[in-house]
Formats: sequence, structure tokens, C-alpha cells
Amino acid sequence: MELSDCLPFWDTLSEQQRQQLVHAAALRTVEKGTVIHGPGGRCTGLLAVVSGQLRAYILSEEGREITLYRLFERDICLFSASCMLRSIQFDIAIEAEKDTAFWVIRPEVYKDLMERLPAVANYTNELMADRFSEVMWRMEQILWKSFDKRLAAFLLEEAALEGSDVLKITHEAIGHHLGNPREVVTRMLRYFQGEGLVELARGSVRITDMEGLRALAG
Amino acid sequence: MELSDCLPFWDTLSEQQRQQLVHAAALRTVEKGTVIHGPGGRCTGLLAVVSGQLRAYILSEEGREITLYRLFERDICLFSASCMLRSIQFDIAIEAEKDTAFWVIRPEVYKDLMERLPAVANYTNELMADRFSEVMWRMEQILWKSFDKRLAAFLLEEAALEGSDVLKITHEAIGHHLGNPREVVTRMLRYFQGEGLVELARGSVRITDMEGLRALAG
Repeated sequence: MELSDCLPFWDTLSEQQRQQLVHAAALRTVEKGTVIHGPGGRCTGLLAVVSGQLRAYILSEEGREITLYRLFERDICLFSASCMLRSIQFDIAIEAEKDTAFWVIRPEVYKDLMERLPAVANYTNELMADRFSEVMWRMEQILWKSFDKRLAAFLLEEAALEGSDVLKITHEAIGHHLGNPREVVTRMLRYFQGEGLVELARGSVRITDMEGLRALAG
Repeated sequence: MELSDCLPFWDTLSEQQRQQLVHAAALRTVEKGTVIHGPGGRCTGLLAVVSGQLRAYILSEEGREITLYRLFERDICLFSASCMLRSIQFDIAIEAEKDTAFWVIRPEVYKDLMERLPAVANYTNELMADRFSEVMWRMEQILWKSFDKRLAAFLLEEAALEGSDVLKITHEAIGHHLGNPREVVTRMLRYFQGEGLVELARGSVRITDMEGLRALAG
């Protein structure tokens, strides 16, 4: 996938501006599990996913994590280039959840275009609004939904992403996604198993009652 | 305060664009307690606070609330004009916490300027990034901080806002700010009273040990 396919405002750029972006972009590939950005790191740059899957998350001082959103093919990550916007005062981390290829665009070049061109600035606005909406959705889940509903929704989401009823994931990793300690995840999964919703094995969770999980997730 | 004082990009506008904004803006005053926007309401418009204090919050289906951020003099609220950005898919409510005067700017006029002028688009970007940062900060508080620390931090914040050690606020209102049931607030405040941090009376909380609260808030 070309850089131009990732940037919807490409057609509005002059040939010179396109060349600027092309020279500011580098294609990288990383293995599953690689932490690409932060937390507390430098301004990595704008990321545009070519293939694979990235996860954006926050990390507490005690090492607890919570997933904010996922990035798939053609998705752009703005917060790995937070130096572009002085008002961004929070810090996320990004890791590859699958082997991933992505473009990294130098933030100063993108920023320069954003400051001059309304199409780039407004695209950036929509990007931020989109991520903001995802984070608000997560926050509402955390605030209003009890943990059983959140865990059920998470298992369904993972099954849909993987295209499989069998999820190769540890209880600790689930805890990182949802912001809960491993023990709490294990306790709830055992309860789910008792209810016939899942079957647990070492390092995997098999969904045995998809409809039951859907009813619980609400 | 004039409209021009609320909009940092004013100087970059042409005379015609300024007139467009002036004609699209109306000054409103509301009493403390008035719900100005939503949830689930129409696209009210951009709000620019002239005097007073607004509170932006979200509301669950069961009527639980949590405060996202406050708006003071010269602050602009974007999310009361969410129709301007199609990617905003969440819904906040805004109420006046004090008697408040504010400009309401028609969203279609602002949107038109934003789409044409980089200065307006980039200002909007910074606004959104700023609110995003506040919401992330709240989320981290909710996720990582235990309720005693959050309540201590809230009381200190209120005391600073009011410029007083005596807070005229009910346990229910505190619960709405922090997203907890009233009973949980009452229990913790009684514990604080037992520790000599506060004194409780009907409809008010008096802070008796500011340093102690600070130490607890961390």
C-alpha cells in the first residue's frame, strides 16, 4: 500500500507537497509484541498502518495497562506525534499486536502542511475526534458497565478480530486490556466457565456459548 | 467581553469573516443550575464563556453522572457543536455551575470558516487536544486512583475554585462529579471526618486539615 492510499487529502496536495511527504516517510516492519512508541518516549511521528494491527494503551505507574483503541490497515495514529499539538498532554504507548508494516511520517513535515492547508488540518481534526470518541466509549464502559459485561464484550470482540472461537490469550493479557488485575480476570473467567460460556485451557479461552456471551454483554 | 477576545484567531480574519461571526453569535445569560446542552440534544453551537462557570459531564442510562471538565472565562466548548465534526460520536451535557454569560456561535458558520482557514482549523485542533488531555487525566484518575485519593483531590480542587474552606455541596452532587453513588461518598466523608480532615454539616463540607488532604491526594 502506497503512502497516498493512507492519506485521504493526497489529491488536494501539490506535486511539491507530495514529494515533501514522500521524503518524510519511511516504511517499517516490526514483529508482533514490539513496542513502537512510548510511554514517555520521544515524538515518534505519525504512523499509518499498511498491514497488521497496533494497540494504543496507557500505563499506570504501577505497571497496570488499559487498551484505548486498536489501529488496523489504513488507520493513522496521531498521538505518536504528540509534539505536533502542544495541547496534547497525555502519553500513550503503542505496540504491535500482530506482525505489522507501517509508514512513519516525520512530525515536523506533517505539522508544516497542517498549519498551511485546511484540508490537512481538518483531516487531523476528524482523526482526533474519532479517537476521542473511541476513548469516551471505553471510559463509559469502564464507568457504567460491570466487569462481567465488559469481559463478555471483550471476548466477543477478540473472537471477531481473530475469526476464531479459540482465543490464544493469557488472563494477564486480558487484564492489561481491561485495566484489571489478573486475579479478577481469572475469577470471572472461572465463573463464565461454570456458566458454560467458555472453556479454559493453559494460555487459551474457547468460547462455547456465543449467544450466552452476547446476551451478557448486552 | 467581546467575541473577538474569545477567539485567538480573530486577528487573522478578514473584515467580512469577522462580520460573519458577529452575526452568527448571540450573547446568553443563564442562572446557576441551568442545563445548557444535551445530553441527546440538538447541536447547540460553539460556546464561549464570558463570565461564570460551566461543567461538562456524561450521564449513564441509569442517571449516574461524571464530570469531564470545567469551562471558565474565555474557554470555548466544542462538543456542544459536535455536528461540526462527523467523527464525534459521543454525547456530553453542559450545565451552569454559577450564573453564567456566554456567546453561542452558530455551528455552520464556524464550520465554514474552519474548512477554509488553516488558523481556525488548527485552533480547533488545539481546543480538542486540550479537552482530550483533560478527559484522559480524568480517566487515569478513575482507573488508577483509589476513591479516597480522588475524593481528597476533588475537595481540594473545589476549595481552590471557591476560594473557601467551606464547600456548599451535597454528597449526591459530589457523587455526580466523581461517578460514584451517594452512599459511597457519605461513607468516605465520614471516614475523613473521623481522621480529622473535614467537618460535615447539612449541605456542606468544611476542610479542617488542608495539609492532610493534600498528603492523601498524593
